[in-house]
Amino acid sequence: MNNLLSDLRIVEFSAFVAAPLGGMTMAQFGAEVIRIDPLKGGIDHYRWPVTDEGASIYWAGLNKAKRSVALALDKPEGRELAKAIATAPGPGAGIVLTNLPPLPGLDYASLKAARDDMIMLRLIGNRDGSAAVDYTVNAASGFPLVTGDGSKPINNVLPAWDVATGLYLSTALLAAEGHRTRTGQGQEVVAALADVTLAMVGHLGYIGDVQINGRSRPPLGNDLYGSFGRDFATADGKRVMIIALTPRQWRALGRATGLGEALGAIGPRLGVDLDTEAGRFDAREAIAELVTPWCAARTLAEIETAFAGSGVLWGPFQDFATLVGSDPRCSTANPLFAEIDQPGIGRYLAPGLPLDFSAAPRQPTRPAPLLGEHTDQVLAEVLGLSAAEIGRLRDSGIAAGP
Amino acid sequence: MNNLLSDLRIVEFSAFVAAPLGGMTMAQFGAEVIRIDPLKGGIDHYRWPVTDEGASIYWAGLNKAKRSVALALDKPEGRELAKAIATAPGPGAGIVLTNLPPLPGLDYASLKAARDDMIMLRLIGNRDGSAAVDYTVNAASGFPLVTGDGSKPINNVLPAWDVATGLYLSTALLAAEGHRTRTGQGQEVVAALADVTLAMVGHLGYIGDVQINGRSRPPLGNDLYGSFGRDFATADGKRVMIIALTPRQWRALGRATGLGEALGAIGPRLGVDLDTEAGRFDAREAIAELVTPWCAARTLAEIETAFAGSGVLWGPFQDFATLVGSDPRCSTANPLFAEIDQPGIGRYLAPGLPLDFSAAPRQPTRPAPLLGEHTDQVLAEVLGLSAAEIGRLRDSGIAAGP
Repeated sequence: MNNLLSDLRIVEFSAFVAAPLGGMTMAQFGAEVIRIDPLKGGIDHYRWPVTDEGASIYWAGLNKAKRSVALALDKPEGRELAKAIATAPGPGAGIVLTNLPPLPGLDYASLKAARDDMIMLRLIGNRDGSAAVDYTVNAASGFPLVTGDGSKPINNVLPAWDVATGLYLSTALLAAEGHRTRTGQGQEVVAALADVTLAMVGHLGYIGDVQINGRSRPPLGNDLYGSFGRDFATADGKRVMIIALTPRQWRALGRATGLGEALGAIGPRLGVDLDTEAGRFDAREAIAELVTPWCAARTLAEIETAFAGSGVLWGPFQDFATLVGSDPRCSTANPLFAEIDQPGIGRYLAPGLPLDFSAAPRQPTRPAPLLGEHTDQVLAEVLGLSAAEIGRLRDSGIAAGP
Repeated sequence: MNNLLSDLRIVEFSAFVAAPLGGMTMAQFGAEVIRIDPLKGGIDHYRWPVTDEGASIYWAGLNKAKRSVALALDKPEGRELAKAIATAPGPGAGIVLTNLPPLPGLDYASLKAARDDMIMLRLIGNRDGSAAVDYTVNAASGFPLVTGDGSKPINNVLPAWDVATGLYLSTALLAAEGHRTRTGQGQEVVAALADVTLAMVGHLGYIGDVQINGRSRPPLGNDLYGSFGRDFATADGKRVMIIALTPRQWRALGRATGLGEALGAIGPRLGVDLDTEAGRFDAREAIAELVTPWCAARTLAEIETAFAGSGVLWGPFQDFATLVGSDPRCSTANPLFAEIDQPGIGRYLAPGLPLDFSAAPRQPTRPAPLLGEHTDQVLAEVLGLSAAEIGRLRDSGIAAGP
């Protein structure tokens, strides 16, 4: 958290990962982000992981530092209130972020009619408006068929396309807001999840590989494509990833393992230049034949000692429990993290913004709201409603608190 | 490409994925992005995929629409020129993006001494300055150990952490630039790749799952965690991903397959509520028992017909060649794509920005530069050097063209 964007107000109608992450990124920059949900919560309100009582740790994670307003979006009066909040005046307000089908009166044209300089960021699945989610665009992307040994498609567990899309949305929001500041002009921004996926497949060279070379990257297990990197088993049943992208890292590996001479002999024997990434890729089986027994003869702790300060590029595989339980990077020793009290869930480590700004010191990480926690506040502060009016909205089932 | 950020100039000292992607995103928004490399190219200049002649399709993909300047960064005079370009006046200039160890005179303090409102974005591996790359932070993240069947760690092929970090950098750049516009104040922004990874593990709920619940997400193959989603084989040897996140998608699956009654009977039999995501997750084996033979009896084309317009959330797995060869989303029928002539590589499909701005129409997608393509132009335009001075720099091996 910092306060760099504290002059912005963003109204979010969202669910799942991408749009909530885009909005939360803005909230972690200090923007006021008001997530408006139906009275009983959005379709992602109970997504796993959940606590034993069913509270969603996932929802809490993706909605930190936001304000929550619960309105009867299935009724005209609820939608009118949502529209009034979204289009309320103020130079940094009038920004909507959504990945949901627009409700009547909450489409871009209707919002623009109420506030001419409206900015609306709208995430869709496919460009033609058909549904697509991380799992379907990932299946189409080509990646699952080259993940692992290639015997069957393997999906990412990380919803990487959602994550990328959420961060594209935060970039897009700031680009559109900067444009509005300079010109007074708002606009609609549309992002298709499938397009983010396709763009990245192209940016990383996989489209060119097919069209120019007539080939595709093959499945390579955990090997790097076009360089040296592989996972190795240790004597104590762990696994480590060892990589040599640069000549310096390659020489460090030889020095730290004492295998320098044997590794060096591979080049002349196979007729490849091990000072190049392509040479190390071509010779990867021969390299691995030497590194495998070296790792297998040592525990993870011994390997850690041997590689400490050596310049070898490596890291152990660890599970979520080990990461959380014993990696110092995942603790309050890292300023990224703070322990927060998350209402309805408990006390645990929450990450702030993974960016440090010298001119905007870190602010305390704030938990996610309870559903409807800020309904009354927002109705009063943004719309200027009286306590009596808010009471009527509550009584008539148009607005709700936690 | 659009022209939303055409008033910005960003100087990039970079390699690999994250920082080049962050810079390219700005270039695709119309910013002038000058990548300054050593005379023979950066350490990523030959990364795979490459053409048969060794030209890097990868490098071209991540440096589209930039200007390329080649300078002898190992010599003081080369570094002085780089510094002069980075700190040249202009309200949208004075922004540096880097993931390389700072060269003498090119650290933030030195740049700030030359231009007080300098913005420098610096990507590091771990927060303590130690090396980390996508492969090592991924190994530490916990994800590879729950990918696939869990028998051994499986890495993402997509460098998802690099991608996320690149997009955080583009967001951060705009936040810092907006701050400078409002206050006149520049700053240094530091992002650690490992922190981006840790933040996302936390945002998605995996830290809370361990700390609150004392458990971790198990490996589940391609099954979704806490909902219904799985891959199924078709009669013609393909595989499809079928998902039901919402009650509507769940009912659509029953209708489109004709299995509605049999699927509906699972709930009472197992005592779970199939209208909830958790219920469908608990009943996933029973659901799959019915869907597996339905898919196995049909070709992909037959499944496509059965699901068309049905509201079923699904998609086929396809390899890179099929994506490029026959998915209409990956063609010039999609405004995301243009055919470009990439010097040194050839003509192929290149993606622009996966965002459509109503107030900033798409501009033609520009190819990546040749190494040093803009050396002379930038020395003349940004530094005002004469042709004779540029000739001397070329002759003395301080600056180079393609």
